[in-house]
Amino acid sequence: MHTELTWADPRVSAALCEVREQKPLIHCLTNIVVAQFTANVLLAVGASPAMVENAQESAQFTESAAAVLVNLGTLSAEREVAMRAAAAAADGHGRPWVLDPVGVGALHHRTGFAAELLEQRPTVVRGNASEVMSLAGSEAAGRGVDTLADSDEAIASATLLAHARNCVVAVSGKVDYVTDGTDVVAVPGGSALMTRLTGTGCALGAAIAAFVAVDNDVLFAAAAASALFKVAGERAASGNPGPGTFAVCLMDELGALSDSAKPLPA
Amino acid sequence: MHTELTWADPRVSAALCEVREQKPLIHCLTNIVVAQFTANVLLAVGASPAMVENAQESAQFTESAAAVLVNLGTLSAEREVAMRAAAAAADGHGRPWVLDPVGVGALHHRTGFAAELLEQRPTVVRGNASEVMSLAGSEAAGRGVDTLADSDEAIASATLLAHARNCVVAVSGKVDYVTDGTDVVAVPGGSALMTRLTGTGCALGAAIAAFVAVDNDVLFAAAAASALFKVAGERAASGNPGPGTFAVCLMDELGALSDSAKPLPA
Amino acid sequence: MHTELTWADPRVSAALCEVREQKPLIHCLTNIVVAQFTANVLLAVGASPAMVENAQESAQFTESAAAVLVNLGTLSAEREVAMRAAAAAADGHGRPWVLDPVGVGALHHRTGFAAELLEQRPTVVRGNASEVMSLAGSEAAGRGVDTLADSDEAIASATLLAHARNCVVAVSGKVDYVTDGTDVVAVPGGSALMTRLTGTGCALGAAIAAFVAVDNDVLFAAAAASALFKVAGERAASGNPGPGTFAVCLMDELGALSDSAKPLPA
Repeated sequence: MHTELTWADPRVSAALCEVREQKPLIHCLTNIVVAQFTANVLLAVGASPAMVENAQESAQFTESAAAVLVNLGTLSAEREVAMRAAAAAADGHGRPWVLDPVGVGALHHRTGFAAELLEQRPTVVRGNASEVMSLAGSEAAGRGVDTLADSDEAIASATLLAHARNCVVAVSGKVDYVTDGTDVVAVPGGSALMTRLTGTGCALGAAIAAFVAVDNDVLFAAAAASALFKVAGERAASGNPGPGTFAVCLMDELGALSDSAKPLPA
Repeated sequence: MHTELTWADPRVSAALCEVREQKPLIHCLTNIVVAQFTANVLLAVGASPAMVENAQESAQFTESAAAVLVNLGTLSAEREVAMRAAAAAADGHGRPWVLDPVGVGALHHRTGFAAELLEQRPTVVRGNASEVMSLAGSEAAGRGVDTLADSDEAIASATLLAHARNCVVAVSGKVDYVTDGTDVVAVPGGSALMTRLTGTGCALGAAIAAFVAVDNDVLFAAAAASALFKVAGERAASGNPGPGTFAVCLMDELGALSDSAKPLPA
Repeated sequence: MHTELTWADPRVSAALCEVREQKPLIHCLTNIVVAQFTANVLLAVGASPAMVENAQESAQFTESAAAVLVNLGTLSAEREVAMRAAAAAADGHGRPWVLDPVGVGALHHRTGFAAELLEQRPTVVRGNASEVMSLAGSEAAGRGVDTLADSDEAIASATLLAHARNCVVAVSGKVDYVTDGTDVVAVPGGSALMTRLTGTGCALGAAIAAFVAVDNDVLFAAAAASALFKVAGERAASGNPGPGTFAVCLMDELGALSDSAKPLPA
C-alpha cells in the first residue's frame, strides 16, 4: 500500500510534541563532519543528544539512551569497535537503533561493516538511493551502486531490504520513501538547498532515532521525522537564501516547529 | 563569603581587554562536537585557539601554550593518552589548565579517567551540577549523580572539591557558581536558549582557560569568563530568536564585547 | 615574473563555473575543527566533498576522487596512516593533491610527517607564511619558524620550495602569493575578519583542490581559488559584521559567486 505523509497531518505535529515532552536521550555514534549540526538539530526539535563514540563506553551508554544512531561517515578502527558494541547492546536491551550507511557501496570496507551491523537488527536504516540499493544488493549478490539514482528507483530495493531484515528503510531524496517491507509511505516536499548543506541527511537519521524513541509505530515515526525535515527545509528555503543563511533558517524552523507542536485533540 | 559578579563590574571588561591584548594561545584537547564552535568562541573573544590532540604532540605543545583545556566529551584511546600527557606537562611546567569532565558520573570509564586527571592538579574544573557532584562524590565514596540537579544544589560539592583539590570549581547552570573552596562567586544572567545550543558549556571552559591565562586571580578570572558568557547569552537572546539565529548572535555579541572591552581607569 | 590575479579577471569566474559544472569529488582528510565548514564551502562553490579518513579506505577512495586534500590540523595515529596511503595513491594514480601543513614548524612530529608527505609529490602546498618557511627551511637544514611573519616574507621560501618539489606553493596572508617556483601570482583583497573565523585557510586548501581538479594549469587554478576567497571575504565583510554573521555571509557569498559564475566568451 502506498500512502503519503506530510506536516499537514496532525499526527506528525503530535509525534514531534511527544519528542519535546519526553526529551529522549539519543546516543549518537556519528561522524566528525556533522556531529555539531546533528547535536543542534536534536536540541532544536527537543531531544537530548549525546555523542559517546569510544569502545569503553558505547555499550554502557546504550542502556541509558532512549535510542541509538550509528552513522558510518568517518569510520575509524576505534569507532567501529564502539559501533559494534552499541549496536549489539541496543539489540540486546531492546533499544531502537538507526543505521545510516553513509558511502556504503562505493567503498568495500564499509560495505562489509554495514552488512555486519545489519546482523544486529537495526530498527531503521536511513540512506540515499545508492546506499539503500547497495545494502539490498549485497543481499542479492553484489548489485552495483548508482550514486546518481533518484529515491524512487530505490523503492524496490528498500522494500526488499526491509522485508529481509524486518526493519524500516527510509530512502532520502527529492521525495523520501519509507517502508516496512509491505507498506510504502511517500514524503514529498523539502528543497534542493538541503543538498547544498552538509549533514541534512545525517541529521535526519538522528531525528528518526528521536521519533522512534517516543513512538512504537516505527514506520510512521520514521516517516514523521522525514515530514518534519521536508517542511522545515521548505520554509527555510523560502526567499531562496544563500547556503549560509539557509543553514541558520533551517535550525530556526526546526525549533519553531517543535515549539509549536501540539498533541492530537482528545 | 558569597559575592556576585556580572558584566556591570568594570573588572570583567578589563580582564576581557587583557585577553584581547595578550591573545593567549589556548591548547584545546576537546571533542568532535564542539571543536569548531570552541575555536570560534576563542577567536571572537580575542584568544588564539589550537587543537592538538594526538599523543605525539600534546605534551610538547603545552609548553608553547598559555593555558590548556581538557574536555572529556568524545574520548578515544589516543585522545586519553594525549590528555594525560598534556595535563602532566601543564602541571610540570606551571601552565594553568582547565578540566571539563563532560558526562562524568553517568559513565564509569570517564569517571575513573577524570579522577586520574585530577591528580595532575587542574587549575579550574568546570562542569554542570551533576558532573561536579559526581567528581566531589567520588572523593567521598561513590555519591551518585543527578543529571537534573540545579547548579545551587552543587555548591556544597563544588566547595568540597575545590578545597580538597586546591583548585577553582565552576558550576554552570541557571546561575553559575565559582568557588575556590572558601569563597563562592555567583554569576547570574544568561538565557535558557544557551541550553538549546550544543557546546556553550564546553566553550565556556575554553574561555575560562583564556581568562586564567591572563589573570593570576583564578577565582576572579573563572567568574569573569562566566559573567562574559552570561551577558553575551542575554544579549543574543533578546528578541527570542530561533536556535540557529541565536548561535550567530551569541558569536556576534562575544565579538562585540571583546572589541569594546576597556582596561580599568588608572 | 610577478603578476596579480583578482576576481575581476573573467578567467577566475570561468574556472569557478567549471567547478560548478564538473562537480569534482574532493576526498578530504582534514581535521575535526574545520570538517563541517570545509564540506559546506565545497558544496557552496559547487564541488562534492567527502571525508574518508580511515586507513582501510583512504587509498581506495582516492581512485574515485577528482582531487585529494591532506590537512594536518588534528593528526592521530590512524589519520596519519590514512593520509600516507591517500597521498601515495594520489601520486600513483595521477590525482592532484593538496597538502595543508597546519602547525608545521611549531611541532616536531608533524614537521617530520610533512617532510615525509612531500616525498609523495603534492600538486599544491598551501599554508601560512611560517608553515611555508618551515617546510622550505627543512630542505635547507633547520631554518626556524616565525609565526608572526607576513606572507610577503615567505615569497622566497615558497619559490624555493616550489622549485625543489616541482609543485605549486600558495602562501595565505594579507596578500596571498602563489608560485610554481618561477612565476609568482599575487592575490590581494580579503578581510581581516577572515582571521577571526576558524578554518578559512583550511577551506581555501579544499577549494584549491576543487579548482586544480578541473583545470590543468595548477598555478592559475590555485591562484583562482585564492581570488575567489578574497572577493567572497571582502563582500562578506562589507558592513563590518560580527564574527557569527560574517561566517554566514561568507558562505552566502561563495554560493552566490558560484551560482553566477560564467564561462569565458567563445
